[in-house]
Amino acid sequence: MRAVLMERGKLWVEQMPTPEPGPGEVLVRTRACGICGSDLHAARHTEAFVKTSREAGGAFKLTTFDPVVMGHEFAAEVVDYGPDTQQRYPAGTLVTSVPMLLREPATPVGYTTEAPGGFGEYMVLSERLLLQVPGGLPATHAAFTEPMAVGLHAVRKARLQGNEVTIVQGCGPVGLAVITALRAQGAGPIIAADFSAARRALAETQGAHQIVDPSVTDPFALAAAQGRDNTTIFECVGVPGMLDAQFVGAPANAQIVVVGVCLQHDSLRPLIAINKELRLQFVLGYSLDEFRDTLHGIADGTFQIEPLITETVALEGVADAFDRLANPDAQGKVLVLPNGPSP
Amino acid sequence: MRAVLMERGKLWVEQMPTPEPGPGEVLVRTRACGICGSDLHAARHTEAFVKTSREAGGAFKLTTFDPVVMGHEFAAEVVDYGPDTQQRYPAGTLVTSVPMLLREPATPVGYTTEAPGGFGEYMVLSERLLLQVPGGLPATHAAFTEPMAVGLHAVRKARLQGNEVTIVQGCGPVGLAVITALRAQGAGPIIAADFSAARRALAETQGAHQIVDPSVTDPFALAAAQGRDNTTIFECVGVPGMLDAQFVGAPANAQIVVVGVCLQHDSLRPLIAINKELRLQFVLGYSLDEFRDTLHGIADGTFQIEPLITETVALEGVADAFDRLANPDAQGKVLVLPNGPSP
Repeated sequence: MRAVLMERGKLWVEQMPTPEPGPGEVLVRTRACGICGSDLHAARHTEAFVKTSREAGGAFKLTTFDPVVMGHEFAAEVVDYGPDTQQRYPAGTLVTSVPMLLREPATPVGYTTEAPGGFGEYMVLSERLLLQVPGGLPATHAAFTEPMAVGLHAVRKARLQGNEVTIVQGCGPVGLAVITALRAQGAGPIIAADFSAARRALAETQGAHQIVDPSVTDPFALAAAQGRDNTTIFECVGVPGMLDAQFVGAPANAQIVVVGVCLQHDSLRPLIAINKELRLQFVLGYSLDEFRDTLHGIADGTFQIEPLITETVALEGVADAFDRLANPDAQGKVLVLPNGPSP
Repeated sequence: MRAVLMERGKLWVEQMPTPEPGPGEVLVRTRACGICGSDLHAARHTEAFVKTSREAGGAFKLTTFDPVVMGHEFAAEVVDYGPDTQQRYPAGTLVTSVPMLLREPATPVGYTTEAPGGFGEYMVLSERLLLQVPGGLPATHAAFTEPMAVGLHAVRKARLQGNEVTIVQGCGPVGLAVITALRAQGAGPIIAADFSAARRALAETQGAHQIVDPSVTDPFALAAAQGRDNTTIFECVGVPGMLDAQFVGAPANAQIVVVGVCLQHDSLRPLIAINKELRLQFVLGYSLDEFRDTLHGIADGTFQIEPLITETVALEGVADAFDRLANPDAQGKVLVLPNGPSP
């Protein structure tokens, strides 16, 4: 098969063996796969990514420096089954899955040589984790299940009481997913902040109530003016300095949900958080239930996807897309279509 | 009156005007006043303390560089009343109070020139905040209400479910207060860690179930061996590096309650906290209810105080005591008796 390989930040298209489904596994043809901020991180900061992931014993396991096929936000169609499978879905069925293989140990899809991801023509998935894409939902929308589930998970971990004002800092794909999930839940005032006009426009399509350029308008002042009892801030930027900036801006007793993934060491002033008795909830990923709920939310229109697709590229366009996405003004989501336009 | 003055880390005894109670205020004679870690911080890092406090808009307000009389953990006896007072307690009544004057704006006792603290013979307090010390409780015990309330508040903010294993990192006065409050609440396994043998001995008197020297035994491994669903860590050290160390040691989904006050910038790796979905609850101080509950807990013996008093000094001994307490091996609590032995 043809696939995009990544090694320490370099990306290129190459012919490689099509993966073979093992016991309980299924071969799928990738129809659409989003490029995620984590892919950019892993490509640009491979060594730090591997080192910190190992120390953390976390879910991100970019285990080798050998070339890998990335891509973990996908929709694909069933092609063939490995041994010991139920074969519930006929060939051609459009499916998605959490990007994880039920091997021993569990293996993330799109980060290691063992489990090539969606930036290739074919992938192997675990049959037990397959979710059928509801009829009529295009692959380009179903591929958003993974990133949108991140937003749903962050909002559920926030355990909102209903009397909050919420601030979403950063309207990249993660921030937009949070806004979408907040709106779907009916959360009251959602204030979104981003330096990029294009991203602010996307925040509006996703239903944020007030949208500001933080270089012009202080989102914390705007939140304070709402007169709500509680403030929850979703930090969706993930660069050094953001946590301390939230400490300074947040009102007393605020909750900060840390969704943006900062790979570097970060410096902050604990005394500020102490004086305000802030709470920080770090979050990662989603549960299987949250993933399924997200797919159904996309299918029934609760989660609006169409405005978020800003570009589609073939495998040959992935390397350039990574370069463009490194620009902080980059907007929305780039979808990779390894097998041509989605049917 | 005679008092200990502090200016940028220097401490000396001096004769100064006895403060005069304003409307709603009462003049009291200080019987006992503990030396707090915050006093040491404020004395040794005055400029950082003032700068960060201002940025944080917090409760610590060391507002000037003029000499101040510190001391905010006190018991005192009523001497005289100012205008507009109810005069409910006769002269000689032993009282305590949250270290705050109900002026406009509210003024902390022991941090500014306007409200001299307990390292002097006399103080002015707000009558409405006075709490009578229950009969028979000595001033040296009642003076622990303030620091022990910090522990009670931290434990209440932790919102323990009852199925936790708890780890107390650092057994200085703050850690000991947390252990005491955990034990009073009947919290299950309390693992206390401190490098100092003397402090570990105090952790035992306060009821910690397992007490370790972290250079010999990993408290996180010990906690994991308990097989509990949840882990809550009380960070009671407050020096740079402690938060990152908790990130590394904590199990997934742990809660870290940050009670120790770190005044410096701190460096940490957010990715570790993200991978484990940790929660941080920063805490400060206590409510009026928690302060009252603590006084009653001390009076009825729920909170054991006697072992914690490691030394008493007169005003002349305060400067030396500050030097001794700067030693990280310093143990327990030094009480200042500005008017001689407690009656």
